[in-house]
Amino acid sequence: MTRLHDPAAHTFASDNYAGVHPEVLAALADANGGHVPSYGADPYTRRLGEVIVDLFGEGAAIDPVLTGTGANVAALQALTPRWGAVICAATAHIYTDEGGAPERLGGLKLLTVPTPDGKLTPELIDRQAHGWGDQQRPQPLAVSITQSTELGTVYSVDEIRAVSDHAHALGMQVHLDGARLANAAASTGASLRDLTRASGVDSVSFGGTKNGLLLGESVLTFTEEAREGITFLRKSDAQLASKMRFVSAQFLTLLEDDLWLRSAGHANGMARRLRDGLAPLEGVTITQPVDANAVFVVLPRGIVEEIREVHHFYDWDRPTGEVRLMCSFDTTEQHVDALVADVVGALGRL
Amino acid sequence: MTRLHDPAAHTFASDNYAGVHPEVLAALADANGGHVPSYGADPYTRRLGEVIVDLFGEGAAIDPVLTGTGANVAALQALTPRWGAVICAATAHIYTDEGGAPERLGGLKLLTVPTPDGKLTPELIDRQAHGWGDQQRPQPLAVSITQSTELGTVYSVDEIRAVSDHAHALGMQVHLDGARLANAAASTGASLRDLTRASGVDSVSFGGTKNGLLLGESVLTFTEEAREGITFLRKSDAQLASKMRFVSAQFLTLLEDDLWLRSAGHANGMARRLRDGLAPLEGVTITQPVDANAVFVVLPRGIVEEIREVHHFYDWDRPTGEVRLMCSFDTTEQHVDALVADVVGALGRL
Amino acid sequence: MTRLHDPAAHTFASDNYAGVHPEVLAALADANGGHVPSYGADPYTRRLGEVIVDLFGEGAAIDPVLTGTGANVAALQALTPRWGAVICAATAHIYTDEGGAPERLGGLKLLTVPTPDGKLTPELIDRQAHGWGDQQRPQPLAVSITQSTELGTVYSVDEIRAVSDHAHALGMQVHLDGARLANAAASTGASLRDLTRASGVDSVSFGGTKNGLLLGESVLTFTEEAREGITFLRKSDAQLASKMRFVSAQFLTLLEDDLWLRSAGHANGMARRLRDGLAPLEGVTITQPVDANAVFVVLPRGIVEEIREVHHFYDWDRPTGEVRLMCSFDTTEQHVDALVADVVGALGRL
Amino acid sequence: MTRLHDPAAHTFASDNYAGVHPEVLAALADANGGHVPSYGADPYTRRLGEVIVDLFGEGAAIDPVLTGTGANVAALQALTPRWGAVICAATAHIYTDEGGAPERLGGLKLLTVPTPDGKLTPELIDRQAHGWGDQQRPQPLAVSITQSTELGTVYSVDEIRAVSDHAHALGMQVHLDGARLANAAASTGASLRDLTRASGVDSVSFGGTKNGLLLGESVLTFTEEAREGITFLRKSDAQLASKMRFVSAQFLTLLEDDLWLRSAGHANGMARRLRDGLAPLEGVTITQPVDANAVFVVLPRGIVEEIREVHHFYDWDRPTGEVRLMCSFDTTEQHVDALVADVVGALGRL
Repeated sequence: MTRLHDPAAHTFASDNYAGVHPEVLAALADANGGHVPSYGADPYTRRLGEVIVDLFGEGAAIDPVLTGTGANVAALQALTPRWGAVICAATAHIYTDEGGAPERLGGLKLLTVPTPDGKLTPELIDRQAHGWGDQQRPQPLAVSITQSTELGTVYSVDEIRAVSDHAHALGMQVHLDGARLANAAASTGASLRDLTRASGVDSVSFGGTKNGLLLGESVLTFTEEAREGITFLRKSDAQLASKMRFVSAQFLTLLEDDLWLRSAGHANGMARRLRDGLAPLEGVTITQPVDANAVFVVLPRGIVEEIREVHHFYDWDRPTGEVRLMCSFDTTEQHVDALVADVVGALGRL
Repeated sequence: MTRLHDPAAHTFASDNYAGVHPEVLAALADANGGHVPSYGADPYTRRLGEVIVDLFGEGAAIDPVLTGTGANVAALQALTPRWGAVICAATAHIYTDEGGAPERLGGLKLLTVPTPDGKLTPELIDRQAHGWGDQQRPQPLAVSITQSTELGTVYSVDEIRAVSDHAHALGMQVHLDGARLANAAASTGASLRDLTRASGVDSVSFGGTKNGLLLGESVLTFTEEAREGITFLRKSDAQLASKMRFVSAQFLTLLEDDLWLRSAGHANGMARRLRDGLAPLEGVTITQPVDANAVFVVLPRGIVEEIREVHHFYDWDRPTGEVRLMCSFDTTEQHVDALVADVVGALGRL
Repeated sequence: MTRLHDPAAHTFASDNYAGVHPEVLAALADANGGHVPSYGADPYTRRLGEVIVDLFGEGAAIDPVLTGTGANVAALQALTPRWGAVICAATAHIYTDEGGAPERLGGLKLLTVPTPDGKLTPELIDRQAHGWGDQQRPQPLAVSITQSTELGTVYSVDEIRAVSDHAHALGMQVHLDGARLANAAASTGASLRDLTRASGVDSVSFGGTKNGLLLGESVLTFTEEAREGITFLRKSDAQLASKMRFVSAQFLTLLEDDLWLRSAGHANGMARRLRDGLAPLEGVTITQPVDANAVFVVLPRGIVEEIREVHHFYDWDRPTGEVRLMCSFDTTEQHVDALVADVVGALGRL
Repeated sequence: MTRLHDPAAHTFASDNYAGVHPEVLAALADANGGHVPSYGADPYTRRLGEVIVDLFGEGAAIDPVLTGTGANVAALQALTPRWGAVICAATAHIYTDEGGAPERLGGLKLLTVPTPDGKLTPELIDRQAHGWGDQQRPQPLAVSITQSTELGTVYSVDEIRAVSDHAHALGMQVHLDGARLANAAASTGASLRDLTRASGVDSVSFGGTKNGLLLGESVLTFTEEAREGITFLRKSDAQLASKMRFVSAQFLTLLEDDLWLRSAGHANGMARRLRDGLAPLEGVTITQPVDANAVFVVLPRGIVEEIREVHHFYDWDRPTGEVRLMCSFDTTEQHVDALVADVVGALGRL
């Protein structure tokens, strides 16, 4: 096969425009060759399970899957009975960006709450947390939060704890969509365990692809109840990899030697550098706290397309002109500084 | 990450016990580095589309997905309206081995027909092809065949043509579950196109993982009708890879330079060699034609476990003692001959 | 069977606390006796179809079903492909009160918009009407409005026309949840046809139970496209009555001799009388226009339970103390005046 | 409304071609008038619950629904987790005649077994009862039997007990589709309780419409586990009647004064009379035991259409010429004797 792209190209479009971290690619080669049992009965998946217990404690388990959507659906199905509904932010990826998969694939009802910054609180949860026993109301039996959020903000350990305690007190389970959990951990300095199990979270969609994997997501669970049926649901959700060793080997690489933290910490640092470069500029407004690896910013309309052509990024809110700049494990200081310089230049020509 | 397995190990358990073909692994490295658009807007996916048109003609399209189950469900959903039912063999993978995904994920009704060899015929289809307009009967609007079948048998071009003509005459679409289509093509000498589009098939689950890919399946369609909605269904079926370049690059490697044919032809040859070694032995019965890369065989009960311990394989039908021996792209003559020798030895000790 | 209730009891709780209109009960007896074909091939269902064509014009069709939820789900499934999403008000019955049936039973994605009065407008629709072709976004392909709304408000013909024109211009179909369409027609003076087909609506959940039927709902469609598959969907949605003559006979009674209009007009008149009695009272606030048969009102907290004990009604918004008073075909001036008098009395004792 | 049919017409087409038993119609009038709470909080539904406890013992509960399909789906959903599969006969109504509702509405996987007479046995169940823990196999967690069966045959108490004991020993729940349970009870002389709870059945779709109700089905459960979530599932399956008093009042009429037994016993007697009249005739073959209210029979091809024109009935198996003659609560000796006489006459003219 011929290479068809420029391996030096960089964008601020998304952390999945980036490729595979070299350590991960090397691991795929190491895991290759010979025969091992398929569908998860291989030594890499077994070892991954042990690593998870080391990191999250006894009773923690990981079930590798293939997409973030698949992880979210399987995790939420395992967490709720057929009649359960899930409270989430109106901006939650599960509600807005998964093509209706939670509803169509999972038979899940989502009860949404508007939020200013993508974060739920006990008070916001209460807007939908009612009607248990009312046979006409979808029964709120789980809360799903995203960490870091779709708006680049990060819950503190205390904020998660407050959500979990409130949900549990009301008889609801707690799910965390952690497609970018690594970035949240790097941001807060808290451990993965502190931000999940130790804060009362019951199950996690633990992502890898946005943090340098080729293709790999997973469901982390901390109780038998949260995991019950997950292997069957994983299959009927079309998330069971036959050659699972290659998914597990990637996660092993991510978790051993703290590659997850190095990569996420680096991406976060690049986002802060970007914020620091852009924030002081006249006519530029940073619209959300830069807690993780995303910068949400309003640029003067006159310069947006010129900058986009070189650096590539997505609109977030077309009416206000807000755009999203996303940093990756392979974003460099040069990439950031070039973008800032181009904005400065364009502003000068306005 | 440390290697945790023996790269020299070989089994006859499944073609997904095997790893990744070295040419495919090399392609992943070539496709890596730099940024390309995610979710399929990358040059590898674009090029793959062109290769498919070259192979299957104008109007052919490919949509990469992540699992065979996902390919089957998305293809069948796109092929039928919400009220459509799908006629398939009672042994079809979609009915027996996908955890109910077609029904649960896809809302698909399967109408099954018993067959002697896993192959449908116009006559067998007629057992379920009735009741159109009857509001209580699930409406048969598609037929799904597997090539090569779950029993290791292969449809000839004429047999597929007969199925397609019959189905179309009755107003039904035709889907082909081609997890092992490459093996069927290698077996018959017909081209991929002859076995699908040219024989009247409307859409295909075209598999790669069982033929040396790391992880990659796809939906091939030949008409706009068969493809309508597939990209939305792929997402709501949780089959949309964010870093799709790596799935597409694998398929490019498979299709360019005929790697698919070399690998499948080799595996088929190993299965024939195995059959030729086993068939003459006293007390050993080959139970299905060895058309592709699987040998279905009854071994004397007294020797099964002894052979299994060394060579690994699965029971197919426990009551009769039938087992399945599967060959892969990396099965060698030595592997085959060793198994035959061990059977001969064990028979001698009976 | 022994009578177990007081046939003189009256409440303001819901129009389905009321029983069956005597003319409807008589029709059930007339339709009884002897054998007629089941599942809709009977003369009552056939005649109902003719009446619908008389009322709504050529091409109009009615398919009787059993619940309003069933009507909504079947109508919306027929109106959209598997990947379609439906834009509706955040207060829509389909989103809040159907136990997640649209999502779970119908595989439908609902995209909600907050509204002040339960009514969508072109501007409000635009909040969710975007992202066609974006494979991650559920595709907005239908708009569903409720008439009269869950808040007792009524769309004018012009308002519906504006919604329909806007939706159609964007390639979306228009569904109307008409559980209380009769009340809206009685309120506006417009015909059933003016409020639906003539205003661009494609399909209607046309309700009967809330307007004096024993049990009967229906799906009205005005195009072949809107009706395609409805009989199959009705069955797989568990909405196919075997002895359908008894559902159709009820609708015939409702539509012949304008029983629907007499009953709904009466209920609306009682609601206006109630509003007129309550509105002038000190400390009492009417919170929504009384367009149909519901009065939304805030009563002083000190008197709510005392009034509820006698007249029965439901809380609408517990934090604000808003309650809903619903009038039925069998609400009398005496019932209304007694409630007003009791409120006056209770206010005096505050 | 004008009567549009001949109240003296009779057919052998189906027990739902018949109308409403006069005692049931009278009960609807008695239950009418005044206001009672909707959605099941009325005195008729409460009383029905007490009657069920009287008949089936402490812990028995009934939840009225609207269609047999709805009863089957809700009962099976409550009985199994999201990943459960249901073993049933290949002729089971849930597999063949419900438009795919179990799969589409319920997300249920059905595992079918061919049977000679529509009845499952422990041996037949074993054909599908395997693969627990295998993540690719739909997990068999319930068995569903039909009583009386779709072929007019009846399980004895001992036969049900054998099925239940076997299923329970394997960790599976037992559901009974009792659309015609009354006919089975009348046939065997066993009580409703003997045939269900006392034989180990966990939940029952208890039908009324085929036995003289206007419209009414129900889910009977005998354990908390079997009933868990049923009220929420009933709503999301679109089976919640708003004016439930009228469904419950019908069941009360059926169960009090043994109307169910009188009607079913009568229909069974008519079927036996029909069998006795037809069986001795040359060229006429009774194809199934006449245990309940259906006669399955092969008539000489030359006379079928002539008889059908007068007496109306459905083909069962077109290739063999087998037809189904169904008796109802309102079938009389005259109806039966007229059919037999017409067959005798037609045979004479052959």
